[in-house]
Amino acid sequence: MPAERDDAPTSAPAPGSTASLRSANQRRVIRLLQQQTAGEPLTQADIARSTQLAPATVSNIVRDLTAAGMVETVMGSGRRGTTVRISRDAGLVVGIDFGHRHVRVAIGDLTGEVIADEREPIAQDHRYGDGLDRAAAMLDSLLAKLDATREDVLNIGLGLPAPITREDVVMSSAILPGWVGVNARVEAEARLGRPAHIDNDANLGALAEHRHGAGMGHPNMVFVKVSSGVGAGMILDGELFRGSHGTAGEIGHLTIDEQGPFCRCGSRGCLEAYASIGMAATALADQLPNASIDDIVAAAKNGNVSALRMFEDAGLHLGWGLAMLANLIDPSAIVVGGDMARAGDLLLDSIHIGMRRHALASVSSTTLVTRAALGDRASVIGALLLALDRTDLVPAQGLG
Amino acid sequence: MPAERDDAPTSAPAPGSTASLRSANQRRVIRLLQQQTAGEPLTQADIARSTQLAPATVSNIVRDLTAAGMVETVMGSGRRGTTVRISRDAGLVVGIDFGHRHVRVAIGDLTGEVIADEREPIAQDHRYGDGLDRAAAMLDSLLAKLDATREDVLNIGLGLPAPITREDVVMSSAILPGWVGVNARVEAEARLGRPAHIDNDANLGALAEHRHGAGMGHPNMVFVKVSSGVGAGMILDGELFRGSHGTAGEIGHLTIDEQGPFCRCGSRGCLEAYASIGMAATALADQLPNASIDDIVAAAKNGNVSALRMFEDAGLHLGWGLAMLANLIDPSAIVVGGDMARAGDLLLDSIHIGMRRHALASVSSTTLVTRAALGDRASVIGALLLALDRTDLVPAQGLG
Repeated sequence: MPAERDDAPTSAPAPGSTASLRSANQRRVIRLLQQQTAGEPLTQADIARSTQLAPATVSNIVRDLTAAGMVETVMGSGRRGTTVRISRDAGLVVGIDFGHRHVRVAIGDLTGEVIADEREPIAQDHRYGDGLDRAAAMLDSLLAKLDATREDVLNIGLGLPAPITREDVVMSSAILPGWVGVNARVEAEARLGRPAHIDNDANLGALAEHRHGAGMGHPNMVFVKVSSGVGAGMILDGELFRGSHGTAGEIGHLTIDEQGPFCRCGSRGCLEAYASIGMAATALADQLPNASIDDIVAAAKNGNVSALRMFEDAGLHLGWGLAMLANLIDPSAIVVGGDMARAGDLLLDSIHIGMRRHALASVSSTTLVTRAALGDRASVIGALLLALDRTDLVPAQGLG
Repeated sequence: MPAERDDAPTSAPAPGSTASLRSANQRRVIRLLQQQTAGEPLTQADIARSTQLAPATVSNIVRDLTAAGMVETVMGSGRRGTTVRISRDAGLVVGIDFGHRHVRVAIGDLTGEVIADEREPIAQDHRYGDGLDRAAAMLDSLLAKLDATREDVLNIGLGLPAPITREDVVMSSAILPGWVGVNARVEAEARLGRPAHIDNDANLGALAEHRHGAGMGHPNMVFVKVSSGVGAGMILDGELFRGSHGTAGEIGHLTIDEQGPFCRCGSRGCLEAYASIGMAATALADQLPNASIDDIVAAAKNGNVSALRMFEDAGLHLGWGLAMLANLIDPSAIVVGGDMARAGDLLLDSIHIGMRRHALASVSSTTLVTRAALGDRASVIGALLLALDRTDLVPAQGLG
């Protein structure tokens, strides 16, 4: 069942009217159910208490939402009585994440719970059309297992490891050359046939870690992805912050040393040159030739002094960059993820030292710096949450 | 007439109720009138069109607000018919700004227009109580000229050149030593007898430049105050962003060179050491002994090569710091103010070069960097706007 897209033109009722009040109240009940379904099921009395709506109003809303197929009531066993939850048939959302050398697809229900997912390798230099066709095939295969079709998918979230403009165009990226200049939303909607929403992988990682990971309970938090490049996604006052042109969070190109190595961005001495997989491979080219990041982590854990020193120096420089970000943003948590974070404390311990050296004491003492909780699934979960956020189950006139 | 403070406990009606709808609609009409009063006066038909409320609803609201003394109607001359505006008797707001060596007091009406203001010098090492008593005397003298009393003041905004915690405590500041550790809100309310709201001077400058200065029309903009120290205030998605602990915007302590001079903050090579009045005085101690910043600006304009070089180097380093901020935040405008900005293009030209060298090309090409428009009145106007923002003219139950 297709829902209104929040950016679609609608003949909205006048603000302040009874119709807009009704749809706002219906939306509030649905939001509550979406947040709570994973936990204790809610009775109508619970809903009235949490929303402060009158019990009779809640009763009308549940009746209308049930008739519209949005919620279902479940007969209680024992003391709880009848509870209300989002209907399993109300629809699905999808998250797709293109990484350095992989594509992931996840399907979720309308509470954001992942009910199916899959990961496949993909060539780094793939053309965007081939990548989307691959994602479409993976999606269809997963849907078939759930006995569902693309018609059941209300929205798709798509993550890419590149800066994305506000108009959904992929900007210059050394990581996915086959996507540069592409309007990812237009192409994804053409090949997948459903409404799509695009964002940068670090932004989506921030969304996921904020809602379900190491950043829970922190309305101002930053997710830093340290991988082929270094990117940051920022949650400010509880919302993903994208900046004026969609490119906020480019921490990888902070100038650490203006006489440092030239960077592909046109500047010199960028943080990426001191802390990224590329730097690690270059630094260890003689000692550990052709080593993957996991090989390098293993070598460091076995006491290889070159690998240990590389993580130490990378961590000190990351801490410097994070200190500058923290002085400016004053977050309460910074969550470190991406492939390099698999080194764990080998990297985190030095990050803490760098933070303390370079941030104001009042900032470093109040900013939690911790490892990401969702591992390499953060971006695809974030993509699914983006799709969920863009799914408005209640039309402007209200249901019923 | 005292108004509800937005943080005061109120017995709010249930959200979604008719009472909350009525107060929300009344509030919307007042906000519209506050924004428009400086421009073309509005008829009831204009209000209905702008708010999308029904003409009959607008008529009821105007009647209730008039009865409560909040608005007044003005007989039209010619085509316009009767127009509606905020009543001149609805109340006053006050802004107070403590600077390096001055205190300013401004009184405004409820549209934010300044109707009286005054500036006096004050010793830098004054005790906070003496400073507040001085401000109180200036306020009373200004009020007397307007034939008003403190009872007419609904809210006071107070700006201080120091980091301020979320609890309104002044944190360590080399600039105002007599205020450190003081709860500025509690002390201001005790000595001024009216509700007070505290913020950092750079945050208030950002608010003022955003609403009435060089940052108008930029929902993501940064105001950078380059003076005794360097501080930034950030407007993100249209709102002042304060961070988790109230200290966001500490651009002055970004590490430019980890081997640079030791800083009072405990780090080394902070931006302040490369671009501030203290740096300027130290750099020119031999060539221009005991020179004020205005003396140094005059010398540079007369071709003094040492003064010119100082502004050039300060600008390049400021550009570096602003580039890092812009890479992270992606603002559409950066507004440079504070005493050093009186050098004009002597400083701005080098800032532009530093920005281009250190920011991503996509960032420096889309970020306007310009001089502040409000001069040294920015912070006091921001303090007045803060007071205005905290003035809620409509109680939760609505008026009438």
